[in-house]
Amino acid sequence: MSTLTDVRAVPRRTHEERVLDALRSGGALSRGDLAERVGLSRTTLSEVTGELLRRGAIVVVDDDSATRRGSGRPAQRLALDPASGQFLGIDFGHRRVQVVLADAAHQVMASGADRYADGTEWDERIERAMGLIDRLAGEVGAHLTALQAIGIGVPGPYTGARQAGPRVSWRAQPAPDRVDRVFAERFGAPVLVDNNTRLAALAEAVSRPGAPGHLLYVRLSDGVGGGLVVDGRLVTGSRGLAGEIGHVTADPGGSACRCGKRGCLETVASTAAILAACRARGAQTDTLEDLADAVAKSDPATDAVLRDVGTVLGRVLGAAAMTLDPGEVVIAGEVVHVAPALVDQAAATLRYELYPLAAAAPIAVRAGQLRDSDGAHGALAAVFHSSPLLAGYPQPEPDQRA
Amino acid sequence: MSTLTDVRAVPRRTHEERVLDALRSGGALSRGDLAERVGLSRTTLSEVTGELLRRGAIVVVDDDSATRRGSGRPAQRLALDPASGQFLGIDFGHRRVQVVLADAAHQVMASGADRYADGTEWDERIERAMGLIDRLAGEVGAHLTALQAIGIGVPGPYTGARQAGPRVSWRAQPAPDRVDRVFAERFGAPVLVDNNTRLAALAEAVSRPGAPGHLLYVRLSDGVGGGLVVDGRLVTGSRGLAGEIGHVTADPGGSACRCGKRGCLETVASTAAILAACRARGAQTDTLEDLADAVAKSDPATDAVLRDVGTVLGRVLGAAAMTLDPGEVVIAGEVVHVAPALVDQAAATLRYELYPLAAAAPIAVRAGQLRDSDGAHGALAAVFHSSPLLAGYPQPEPDQRA
Repeated sequence: MSTLTDVRAVPRRTHEERVLDALRSGGALSRGDLAERVGLSRTTLSEVTGELLRRGAIVVVDDDSATRRGSGRPAQRLALDPASGQFLGIDFGHRRVQVVLADAAHQVMASGADRYADGTEWDERIERAMGLIDRLAGEVGAHLTALQAIGIGVPGPYTGARQAGPRVSWRAQPAPDRVDRVFAERFGAPVLVDNNTRLAALAEAVSRPGAPGHLLYVRLSDGVGGGLVVDGRLVTGSRGLAGEIGHVTADPGGSACRCGKRGCLETVASTAAILAACRARGAQTDTLEDLADAVAKSDPATDAVLRDVGTVLGRVLGAAAMTLDPGEVVIAGEVVHVAPALVDQAAATLRYELYPLAAAAPIAVRAGQLRDSDGAHGALAAVFHSSPLLAGYPQPEPDQRA
Repeated sequence: MSTLTDVRAVPRRTHEERVLDALRSGGALSRGDLAERVGLSRTTLSEVTGELLRRGAIVVVDDDSATRRGSGRPAQRLALDPASGQFLGIDFGHRRVQVVLADAAHQVMASGADRYADGTEWDERIERAMGLIDRLAGEVGAHLTALQAIGIGVPGPYTGARQAGPRVSWRAQPAPDRVDRVFAERFGAPVLVDNNTRLAALAEAVSRPGAPGHLLYVRLSDGVGGGLVVDGRLVTGSRGLAGEIGHVTADPGGSACRCGKRGCLETVASTAAILAACRARGAQTDTLEDLADAVAKSDPATDAVLRDVGTVLGRVLGAAAMTLDPGEVVIAGEVVHVAPALVDQAAATLRYELYPLAAAAPIAVRAGQLRDSDGAHGALAAVFHSSPLLAGYPQPEPDQRA
């Protein structure tokens, strides 16, 4: 379940958004033109533009004396400050935080990552994120006082502070409920928090023209997670927990999983599990770079492991695909770029699993296009809120506690 | 993919529906009152009511001379004919056709079934259905010239005549594309055809007050099928094939399935498979009645089979539930009423499979409430089209070929 915290009042924010939208589409405009376009009184408009100027979201670019006809005082023209950071996408992984900064036109201005050790406390992770944000903003001269919204992805199910009922997490370091508060208070902007793999699925879905109506997405990383688009909408599930495909039992009686079960897909197909399986067969695969080397020399032990993992992955995806009938299956994560045989084998197994439907248009299976920054891009996509995929997705709302 | 054939023009049908809706909610009304309520001219309204009177959908109940003030000719009052069959729900199974007839107020007037041998030709099945419909209508004195819509469930994926691309079916007797045409021409009413298990899922979802937002439904019968409600909407999938949970591989390398794979859930959990597994362990279970007897005397071999089948079923449902996070799982089919241990074991296995999410509100697992007529009731629900679950579901549209 994602939550959204807005420390400002709704009417003001809506007015601001209408003004910013008008400047985004209309370029530089006088206050008079702006008032007409957004349908606000001159008095209200002046209040709104005053606040936006103060925060650096917009700037006075010139006055209309050059083009003006008739007499009277020249009117200032206002425009978006292209250098003002308008949107932040943040993805907290198990071992790194990724930040993407986008401008008012939704264009990426800067992005970067900061790595930390697995198991790092959340206070530390958040501090690292803050430092990274400041550094990126500094590099591009962005004024972070002008943020429109912040999207944040966190590992595992995120039920949020406002969600009734017990927290759901088997992780040693679940994201604290206060993640949204910390960022909202630091930047004075609305914050949306959701599971980072679900957000990555969103990013993948919107990465191509013509958003897919039905997408099944899995990401192999430190953990294994998934996301679904059904009937053109990102699925959150009845309790906000949809997409936990990494904890589908893939091998009953298999290795113990950190979730408390045995043989979950994650115990077979996480990056660490794949590297360990290769090592168990004698390959020197301590890192993804090692795996890339082994793949490059066609190491038979490594190839066998990738086939086995691809088969297990294809079975789990096949079960989901028989149930959901997605038009497209995306397998993402750094490891699929290092070891494309994994995707090939999973696709072959998927074709077998879907054999009963083989006479229909075939399902498309592909590697994820986005790389390590997919979660941060998905967090941005969620706060842009411009995709039809987000119908039914939580909307910005004022924080009742503010 | 469901298809809907309407042999009448859309404007007329829409006018008719508005008139019928007004009479449904307003009781007996004069033409003048009707014209005002539905916003039609007196001329157009007279055309519409003339056609409805001709077809017997509405009747003249009295005139307003008793209540009328002033002079002039008394106006006739029109009302729905409560005895006119307004909606038909039909479910073609492998071995029987079920028909439910509902009146203008969506109340069931009559229902019944006619059995035929597995493998019966479709011409014969359709003739049986027609005979059953005539018999039921005769019993309640319904005029079938007044049908508003016909919903039809058929076994297996139904891609329909208008769907481009190859047919999808591994069945010896797939429903012919012309099913919709045959009924549309016979009754002069719009026809909606869809997979009968998906329609059964709809019936189960709307059978309780407060339609569930997220439901995972499986039906164990001659075959095994499923249906999904996600975010309050019945899911059809990218190619209309969602819900084929019976052909998820449950036992890799298991028995050959009629679909061409091995070890599908259907090879383990169809009624015939369950009866055969009991017989293989020495039980005398040729029919569901035999199974009921074996369950009643706590036959150990039968109990063991039911536990095994329940475990396999729970694993397949667990994988789907980890992916979809439904609030409710419904296991339907005659066999679950005969052998409730099957549902108990599936629920226990589901709880294990969902253990990682155990701290969240627990998922509800229950046996289907509806019995053999679930598909026909679902077909009715689909044509009533009054549930929010049907957002995005195919809407009535004129037949371009008519």
